[in-house]
Amino acid sequence: MQKVTAKNVTMHPSFIRALMDRVADKMIPYQWEALNDRIPDADPSYCIRNFKAAAHLVDAPHAGCVFQDSDLAKWLEAASYMLLWRDDPETEKNIDEVVEIMRKAQMEDGYLDTYYQLTDIDQRFTNLRDNHELYCAGHLLEAAVAYFDATGKREFLDIMLKYVDLIDATFGSAEDKKHGYPGHEEIELALVKLYGITHDPKHLNLAKYFIDERGSQRHYFDEEAKLRGGSPAWAHSVYERNSYYQASEPVRSQMHALGHAVRQVYLLTGMAEVARETNDESLKLACKRMWNNITRKQMYITGAVGQTAFGEAFTYDFDLPNDTVYGETCASIAMFFFAQSMLRLETKGEYGDIMDTMLYNGTISGMNLEGNRFFYVNPLECIPERSEKSQIIRHIKPVRQKWFGCACCPPNLARMITSLPSCIFTSEGNSLYMNLYTCCDLDLKLDNGRVALSCETDYPQSGLIRIKIAHSFDGFALNLRLPAWVRSYELRVNGEQRISTMDNGYVALGALKDGDEIVYELHMPVDVVRANPRVSQDAGLIAIRRGPMVYCLEEIDNGANLANISISPKSEFTAVYDKEKLGGITEISCPAKRISLEGWDEYELYASNREPIYEDFTARFVPYYSWNNRGKGEMRVWIKTH
Amino acid sequence: MQKVTAKNVTMHPSFIRALMDRVADKMIPYQWEALNDRIPDADPSYCIRNFKAAAHLVDAPHAGCVFQDSDLAKWLEAASYMLLWRDDPETEKNIDEVVEIMRKAQMEDGYLDTYYQLTDIDQRFTNLRDNHELYCAGHLLEAAVAYFDATGKREFLDIMLKYVDLIDATFGSAEDKKHGYPGHEEIELALVKLYGITHDPKHLNLAKYFIDERGSQRHYFDEEAKLRGGSPAWAHSVYERNSYYQASEPVRSQMHALGHAVRQVYLLTGMAEVARETNDESLKLACKRMWNNITRKQMYITGAVGQTAFGEAFTYDFDLPNDTVYGETCASIAMFFFAQSMLRLETKGEYGDIMDTMLYNGTISGMNLEGNRFFYVNPLECIPERSEKSQIIRHIKPVRQKWFGCACCPPNLARMITSLPSCIFTSEGNSLYMNLYTCCDLDLKLDNGRVALSCETDYPQSGLIRIKIAHSFDGFALNLRLPAWVRSYELRVNGEQRISTMDNGYVALGALKDGDEIVYELHMPVDVVRANPRVSQDAGLIAIRRGPMVYCLEEIDNGANLANISISPKSEFTAVYDKEKLGGITEISCPAKRISLEGWDEYELYASNREPIYEDFTARFVPYYSWNNRGKGEMRVWIKTH
Repeated sequence: MQKVTAKNVTMHPSFIRALMDRVADKMIPYQWEALNDRIPDADPSYCIRNFKAAAHLVDAPHAGCVFQDSDLAKWLEAASYMLLWRDDPETEKNIDEVVEIMRKAQMEDGYLDTYYQLTDIDQRFTNLRDNHELYCAGHLLEAAVAYFDATGKREFLDIMLKYVDLIDATFGSAEDKKHGYPGHEEIELALVKLYGITHDPKHLNLAKYFIDERGSQRHYFDEEAKLRGGSPAWAHSVYERNSYYQASEPVRSQMHALGHAVRQVYLLTGMAEVARETNDESLKLACKRMWNNITRKQMYITGAVGQTAFGEAFTYDFDLPNDTVYGETCASIAMFFFAQSMLRLETKGEYGDIMDTMLYNGTISGMNLEGNRFFYVNPLECIPERSEKSQIIRHIKPVRQKWFGCACCPPNLARMITSLPSCIFTSEGNSLYMNLYTCCDLDLKLDNGRVALSCETDYPQSGLIRIKIAHSFDGFALNLRLPAWVRSYELRVNGEQRISTMDNGYVALGALKDGDEIVYELHMPVDVVRANPRVSQDAGLIAIRRGPMVYCLEEIDNGANLANISISPKSEFTAVYDKEKLGGITEISCPAKRISLEGWDEYELYASNREPIYEDFTARFVPYYSWNNRGKGEMRVWIKTH
Repeated sequence: MQKVTAKNVTMHPSFIRALMDRVADKMIPYQWEALNDRIPDADPSYCIRNFKAAAHLVDAPHAGCVFQDSDLAKWLEAASYMLLWRDDPETEKNIDEVVEIMRKAQMEDGYLDTYYQLTDIDQRFTNLRDNHELYCAGHLLEAAVAYFDATGKREFLDIMLKYVDLIDATFGSAEDKKHGYPGHEEIELALVKLYGITHDPKHLNLAKYFIDERGSQRHYFDEEAKLRGGSPAWAHSVYERNSYYQASEPVRSQMHALGHAVRQVYLLTGMAEVARETNDESLKLACKRMWNNITRKQMYITGAVGQTAFGEAFTYDFDLPNDTVYGETCASIAMFFFAQSMLRLETKGEYGDIMDTMLYNGTISGMNLEGNRFFYVNPLECIPERSEKSQIIRHIKPVRQKWFGCACCPPNLARMITSLPSCIFTSEGNSLYMNLYTCCDLDLKLDNGRVALSCETDYPQSGLIRIKIAHSFDGFALNLRLPAWVRSYELRVNGEQRISTMDNGYVALGALKDGDEIVYELHMPVDVVRANPRVSQDAGLIAIRRGPMVYCLEEIDNGANLANISISPKSEFTAVYDKEKLGGITEISCPAKRISLEGWDEYELYASNREPIYEDFTARFVPYYSWNNRGKGEMRVWIKTH
């Protein structure tokens, strides 16, 4: 399948458009300030200062993480996507200035990584395992491709082409090259994006090389460690031989997602991209196996992935602790990208379903409604006092933070959200696939003709979707994703019910004429969800979901001690849209019981043969993404039943 | 109250006697082998080798932990207690040989700590915070007192008196002394034991000094760190200013148990000992406040304390996670000691209740039924696959280990168990208090006369206790602890019902004559226990307890996926003694339901509006202490209800 890019799509006011505007209005300017160290009381980023220092424009040592360059790269990419749907000369000017700094910072031979340039340049490319050079290069490359695509300006792209030439000259299967691959995957998928512009096989081949070499029996990370006299990776104390880096075995042999979650999913995204471009069946199979492992065995209902803070990593199948979870915002964002790559590899609605899960839950939970406070970790249960006093969950912050010393998540969210216009549709031949539902116009040339349509919906508040065909052609087929959560729906064309053929999670509509009006109504009741009983942490519990959105209880609506609340799965649920609350949400309420503290002295820890006293009350659920926007308090997704 | 020591008590076959024999027959010889590095496939201890090296008998560097000496000390103490009730010339000879090595190892000025003697002796007493010198001294001192008490031999005691003189000359309030106190408390309680033999006020005063100085605004640990140019404590990254060491404020100001659990409870034991000997009311008040905080707000139902692996530490009130718990065996042992010290400070059955809780649950769970495998951590929930694959609970071993590099728990268990004959009774004036119930004879001189009695019971399998008075005197009063779990009981003297006065958790019997037969029957039904609803982790769950013993489900009896099991709190419970099973246990069974895996594909993680399918079966509970004696498998204490 092909992407249908933002150039063919116009976004109108909607849930998604509001996210985009929040990012454009708040996050992109805010992050620009952050990258320039101008946010009061927040850790400085030093990101741009590092590039200026490498360009000899200021005199300063390297500061920040070894991968600090990537924060700027992600911001550049986000801003570039934004330029496709919003004129913003000031941001464009800022980018051009940054590109000019980069040009000055770039070394004669193409190298560009401020960490090594400002520390010991002789050590470059000697520690791929830990020091993120190729990761940073990958992010810069994505940004350069995006900026070229948005503006047609070549400067940034040229810088990166030169750097890629150096990387290509350094790594590969040839005898005189290093047989390395990145400790943090990312450049693989970026190289395929580059190939999409250049069509230069060396770019695709380099991506393929990094993937094929990974985890081979040479054990490159151990080899390079020996060469530099370095110590074993810190991760060795916890993870078996390089599995933290997905490098303990070849990617085609891997059976379970493992190690650092963002790395794992970026790798998979790169694999899916290479598999599509090279028609590599064994690689495609590996991608599907891993997709199934993650989404069907290791993914939280919110779309969070990475169950443990130790290494921000996957653990094992059906292990989904709600209180100690990691669930990095970046990992869910990575899943959103991976789903898109899988969708292009294989036309299945399931991939769009996961895009929905990520988009409406575990990614945007990473930012507040104002777009200036961020979560790195997205728990399914939060008791602020625990987060503050129990060291085992100190990674779970009870309130969103201004900025992070390691600030990977905020700019990653920005680039995901500004790229959303390119995620709505995909196409193949004369078929158009609508994957996300939002208010927009499309104008697109397909193989045999042009199609123009507009979509109106208040999705995800309801499942009523109206599509008007402005222009069609013979042989055009419109495929509408039928989300997995749908139990019943109606499809009418010009008021007449249409029985549509279903294929792989889409309903297909053919024979559409100019002026046709399609009403696609996905009934959106409140769903009571249970987890597979193999998940010990969710045994006997339920979660509330409506459409693609997972809900949670917050203390501010329901009082403290949320663990004591139970509801009946057979409850009457009320779902009411409240445009004032939390920026506009559909609130869900139902009768509930709460175990009372009555009869329990504060100095009485256990009692025998004492029946609990229950209080009746009305539980109020809000969408998970919107939690923690009204001060600090408890939150819980999985709820007890009675 | 006074201790009634093992010299007045003869132990007969019973649950407790079996523990004592297991320790004497297995653990003490096994640990002797371990201390001598002769256990195949286990981490060597190096403990005795270190002493030999310090004595210049072998040439070897220091090995093991900085506090390795204490492992030997605890073994010496355990063996000494054993000598009070068992002739064992070989062990006595081993001890004498070790004492001779110690004599040779001791420095001219009395110093004795193999770590500093074998590394850099000039650095001694420069890092009390981290390096455990005073802790090791305390354990050696306890051992020396115990060996002197058991054998009358003075050599070991004299070594330690000389060392204590050096410590006393080094630390104190005088201008020219260091104003330090131990980073790991222990010596305080040991010094009061020493004072019990020497009656030398300087020994009591030194204990009191360490307690009074602790946490004063000088912040000694910071002072000494500055002096040696040392780094802040590792614990600073997690804990506020020295609170890990209970040194952030004076002990009389502390409101909640905090920091490293064993340190906290050893400190409290020392405080209770000093409070008793000095009649210090403010210190007594502090002890009671902390006792209440721990036992009524921070203690697991099994007696485990220390909720987090980060620093093996307390967290905060009502935070009792069952899966990530630390619950070090040593911390429950410390609680057993603390309870005894509190009991001597204040005559309340509550302290005996906690001795029971510790004795029958969270301490002896630390060893297997053979006495040669040990748990350091005692979880209330174990899923072996999680322990093996989820790094956040890698501290929770799914099977007991042979020995530990840091082997504090096994010898600590040994010394607790061999000291049990001294824990049964206490006395005051003409009153005798029976705190633990077991088969034994007592022969004791009280203020106005001699009392002799014998007790027969199969406690804790039942609550039937028969006491025969062999010799009594006018004014003798027998006080029998009435455990807090008792809901009904009978008390008969020579077959006639006796209404007894109750005072502070004891039933009191006066006017007893020679030949009187007392039958004290504590009815012991199965108790369904709930936690205070403030404990979020136990909300809606129940635990099964019978008498002092907490029960658990094991996979071997109930199948896997224990989280899916629920029982009704109103179930009919059957309790049957099975002398073959697990060395003789009372097994509890009841009807139960289990959520079935039926209908759930292995690749299906979530489903909406699907009711669980329940299977009926009979749940079988075994005493918590006996878990993991039949291979690796799941275990769970807190169970769901229906």
